[in-house]
Amino acid sequence: MESRRIAALADGVFAIAMTLLVLQVPVPTLAAPVTGEAMLDALVGILPAVASFAVSFLILGTLWVGHHNQFRYLRRVDPALLWSNIFFLLCVAFVPFATAFLARFPLEAAPMAVYGGTLLLAGLFLFAHWGHAVNAGLVTDDVTPEVAELVRERISMGMAVYLVATLAGVFLPKVGLVLFACVPVLYLLPSRIDPALEADAALDD
Amino acid sequence: MESRRIAALADGVFAIAMTLLVLQVPVPTLAAPVTGEAMLDALVGILPAVASFAVSFLILGTLWVGHHNQFRYLRRVDPALLWSNIFFLLCVAFVPFATAFLARFPLEAAPMAVYGGTLLLAGLFLFAHWGHAVNAGLVTDDVTPEVAELVRERISMGMAVYLVATLAGVFLPKVGLVLFACVPVLYLLPSRIDPALEADAALDD
Amino acid sequence: MESRRIAALADGVFAIAMTLLVLQVPVPTLAAPVTGEAMLDALVGILPAVASFAVSFLILGTLWVGHHNQFRYLRRVDPALLWSNIFFLLCVAFVPFATAFLARFPLEAAPMAVYGGTLLLAGLFLFAHWGHAVNAGLVTDDVTPEVAELVRERISMGMAVYLVATLAGVFLPKVGLVLFACVPVLYLLPSRIDPALEADAALDD
Amino acid sequence: MESRRIAALADGVFAIAMTLLVLQVPVPTLAAPVTGEAMLDALVGILPAVASFAVSFLILGTLWVGHHNQFRYLRRVDPALLWSNIFFLLCVAFVPFATAFLARFPLEAAPMAVYGGTLLLAGLFLFAHWGHAVNAGLVTDDVTPEVAELVRERISMGMAVYLVATLAGVFLPKVGLVLFACVPVLYLLPSRIDPALEADAALDD
Repeated sequence: MESRRIAALADGVFAIAMTLLVLQVPVPTLAAPVTGEAMLDALVGILPAVASFAVSFLILGTLWVGHHNQFRYLRRVDPALLWSNIFFLLCVAFVPFATAFLARFPLEAAPMAVYGGTLLLAGLFLFAHWGHAVNAGLVTDDVTPEVAELVRERISMGMAVYLVATLAGVFLPKVGLVLFACVPVLYLLPSRIDPALEADAALDD
Repeated sequence: MESRRIAALADGVFAIAMTLLVLQVPVPTLAAPVTGEAMLDALVGILPAVASFAVSFLILGTLWVGHHNQFRYLRRVDPALLWSNIFFLLCVAFVPFATAFLARFPLEAAPMAVYGGTLLLAGLFLFAHWGHAVNAGLVTDDVTPEVAELVRERISMGMAVYLVATLAGVFLPKVGLVLFACVPVLYLLPSRIDPALEADAALDD
Repeated sequence: MESRRIAALADGVFAIAMTLLVLQVPVPTLAAPVTGEAMLDALVGILPAVASFAVSFLILGTLWVGHHNQFRYLRRVDPALLWSNIFFLLCVAFVPFATAFLARFPLEAAPMAVYGGTLLLAGLFLFAHWGHAVNAGLVTDDVTPEVAELVRERISMGMAVYLVATLAGVFLPKVGLVLFACVPVLYLLPSRIDPALEADAALDD
Repeated sequence: MESRRIAALADGVFAIAMTLLVLQVPVPTLAAPVTGEAMLDALVGILPAVASFAVSFLILGTLWVGHHNQFRYLRRVDPALLWSNIFFLLCVAFVPFATAFLARFPLEAAPMAVYGGTLLLAGLFLFAHWGHAVNAGLVTDDVTPEVAELVRERISMGMAVYLVATLAGVFLPKVGLVLFACVPVLYLLPSRIDPALEADAALDD
């Protein structure tokens, strides 16, 4: 099975999950005549939903980049890889629900656990996906042991933050929310994996 | 007509249907102040919806893999194949409704029949799709009579389970639900078709 | 501008519009305990929505096939073609609304006019798209004057049915509904354009 | 990282955002028996939603064309470009909310500012995207300083209109609405960038 259609399904699920996130931002309902004060209150009221939209969009962005980086190195796909993809996408597709749940109860333990648990599970499947690809020889020769290790570290970093954010968030919700918001920032920072990726890109020219 | 855009439409419909499934999981509404007990009740209350999301996602995953495997072997597309695709996708697009219906009334015969009937119809179109592709000579030379038969068996297996699950479910709803949940497990088990697919993949290297 | 990304946007809009259609089929709400009679009434109640889902899905299928056939012959894209595509997709994206409107008021003139008008407008943009492609020399050499004429006839056929169905439907709603349901059947019948398309496909082998 | 999957994610987000816009057009609810007058009132009532659907669809169309044109010239992608894409898509995915908000309160300052601000931010990311691509040498040799400047002008034009429309709209809502509706018209007019693009397309033949 070739990797292109799996990537197409994944891009589709990511694009839809990322865009569906916006449906949980409620359009304010205001009694006429609309006063400036009522509108301001309404805007403040939807801020948690807007913030959770943006954070979840960017977290899905980091997962997409991670998935994308793995596929650059895939030479072949076997059924186990195909199915770890589908389980990974199951978690991705669940993020809009977890986001809407957290946006409605931002200071409760349960939605925090559901949100963090969904991301953690997604990270686990992405980690298993890479592990299997390397072990089963499905990757290209560009994947030196060092690159394999860098990719593993990269995914682990996200999972560690999800875990800490979830545990913290169950007891101190606001700390958890701040930590989740930091995930995209972490992935935006230059990383040790970039030179390896850029070296490959340069070779492709 | 080339097969790439048909695959693109199919990947799109699958990705959307799979991701839309999450919209039927209702975000709990709780009166403030939120007690731990009320939250637990709410979580238990959405469990059927979450379970049916996961099961339908994975069943659509098996249908996508089946569709994907057929397209690997397509050399050409004719109008009949194009339209059997569109009818197949019609069933796929209906799955979110059937899932939401079954999640709302998990122990009723009618939603079970609608759910199972939708999947059975999807399987029938997939079966007819393959039959036509083989008979009309639209497949590549890799499709030996043995491979053609293996693909047929593979689709028939799913249809048989859908049929049994539906019939059982109309009378014994819980048995039907368990059987539907088993479909992805069945397709996850190694199958006799895998060596054939892997042999081809190896040749492509 | 190359045609691949335009096709990708189009496939995306079609896949989403086709799949969103299912959201207008309402999941029945029934008071517990659910009686067989109440369930039957509920199923009968959603029949118009299910039928309009299926008919609109298949009509979008015919438009997608028409769009797809045109793109097979495109050699180049210019800004005018790009924009006639975007206006065409605007109509396609509006179909879920028109369908939901018609499903709610199947016997009223206004939703019939909105539904038929949307399809007619889509047909007009598709017709203009082809006319411009041929006139501006954006098509491949495979497009003989005969092929150009066959494609024109094929689109005109659909537009003629939309027009007749709309006009009939405004006065005799049931006749209009039946005529719309016939559109996919018409496109499923073998057509004079098929040999031309198949001849090309054979050449591609 | 190759550009194809980023384009695929972008095409997906655009296709979904453009098609989701239709969900904010409410299907009228009318008490039976439906009178012609009540239906007319209902149609007039949804006109702002239909108009904002069409305008936002076409504005997203102009942003998609702009994104598309940039990708034609990309030779390579680096992490900064990848992330400016994701931030750009974040704005695109927010447009359905901004549209629904504006459609509900077309004459209020706040939704006008949210709508205009979203588009302005999208334009800024598109502008930064191009600037980085040119400065970091990620573009092909076709990008002469003149082409680079033409693309910059093209994006700036849209941003200037968004800014003026937003500022005008906060004080004179109707003027703002008309100006936003003019954006697609502006991009539909032949531009100085077309000859450059067509010259390239001709070279590709």
